[in-house]
Amino acid sequence: MTVIASVSSGLVSLPGREVKGRCESLYVETEPYPETRQVTELALELAGIPGTRHYGFTRKAGPREPWYGRGMEMRSGRQITIVSVEELKAIADAMQVDRIAPEWVGANVVTSGIVNFTLLPSGTRVVFADATLVVEAQNAPCRIAGKAIAQHLTPDAPPGGLDLAFPKMAKGLRGVVASVERAGTIRAGEAIAVKVPPQTLWQSA
Amino acid sequence: MTVIASVSSGLVSLPGREVKGRCESLYVETEPYPETRQVTELALELAGIPGTRHYGFTRKAGPREPWYGRGMEMRSGRQITIVSVEELKAIADAMQVDRIAPEWVGANVVTSGIVNFTLLPSGTRVVFADATLVVEAQNAPCRIAGKAIAQHLTPDAPPGGLDLAFPKMAKGLRGVVASVERAGTIRAGEAIAVKVPPQTLWQSA
Repeated sequence: MTVIASVSSGLVSLPGREVKGRCESLYVETEPYPETRQVTELALELAGIPGTRHYGFTRKAGPREPWYGRGMEMRSGRQITIVSVEELKAIADAMQVDRIAPEWVGANVVTSGIVNFTLLPSGTRVVFADATLVVEAQNAPCRIAGKAIAQHLTPDAPPGGLDLAFPKMAKGLRGVVASVERAGTIRAGEAIAVKVPPQTLWQSA
Repeated sequence: MTVIASVSSGLVSLPGREVKGRCESLYVETEPYPETRQVTELALELAGIPGTRHYGFTRKAGPREPWYGRGMEMRSGRQITIVSVEELKAIADAMQVDRIAPEWVGANVVTSGIVNFTLLPSGTRVVFADATLVVEAQNAPCRIAGKAIAQHLTPDAPPGGLDLAFPKMAKGLRGVVASVERAGTIRAGEAIAVKVPPQTLWQSA
């Protein structure tokens, strides 16, 4: 490994940088949750994709936020779900299945050409020609997406197979959730620029 | 220095952690911009502090975002401005002045007990008893705050003194901008918990 990091005041830092990639494909929510269906473009508002479950500047707290009361209205950082071709392939390999379709795991955007996509820090900008997304957080692998995968690949198998394998194998590969910083239409096949901000590993001592 | 970081797939990581601190004081916007005046509590909505300039889920693009058209409506990550007692002291020492008052630089919240406050990664949660803030980004030191400082400390000096010194000396010490994740009232003097998420220095190779 090569870590080109500078150390000042005891903290390890990396400068900001920009990497180029591609928007491979786009998806919008459909039934049953969390599945999505492919589209050629998505018109993004600042609150997300109009008419979909994750649209809105706020959302209700759920099982991901057990420290808040279930249903408490909170800021949403989950408007858009992004995964990468390379990481979906890595999950499929780890699960020893042919493929994981982006539609099964609720993806809205699939990228290619950006390595370690899930590990992009919060605050990274994903810049399209006419719109910009902000990475909010890693998307935690969940049982619901695991069930969707199992239903597609092993519809006759009892629970406890691929549905459970997914949350384990997808850790660190599940993509990110993002907000819309600049509203506009994004298109399948267009080039994207990923702007990674300067990074510092925060430590208290 | 001690870096206790784990390295996997060539990337340097640190686990998430929680540190305790205190909310020293609170402020709300007043005239002239960017100054604030002290209050004992702030009732936060999910869109920020009602009735203030930075209230809202969206805002107009300004000089900080030269890549967007001036005035373009964009997602706001600047609802709340947080600084730390320790870093204000460090800036004052570097500028060789007695003090930098939080009111002069537009602060809403002043913390104590959290070292390297400005370097907290995006996505860090600042948890109060009844409300939670999410760190969005470092606040870039600006000329406007520099002017306010100069007007208070050296009202008769020509431009080019403390007004210019501030942006230089405050780099990495200027605090952060934050959004409200959980709405509620925050109070001067209350304990806060800072939840730093797991950190990975993203690298492409």
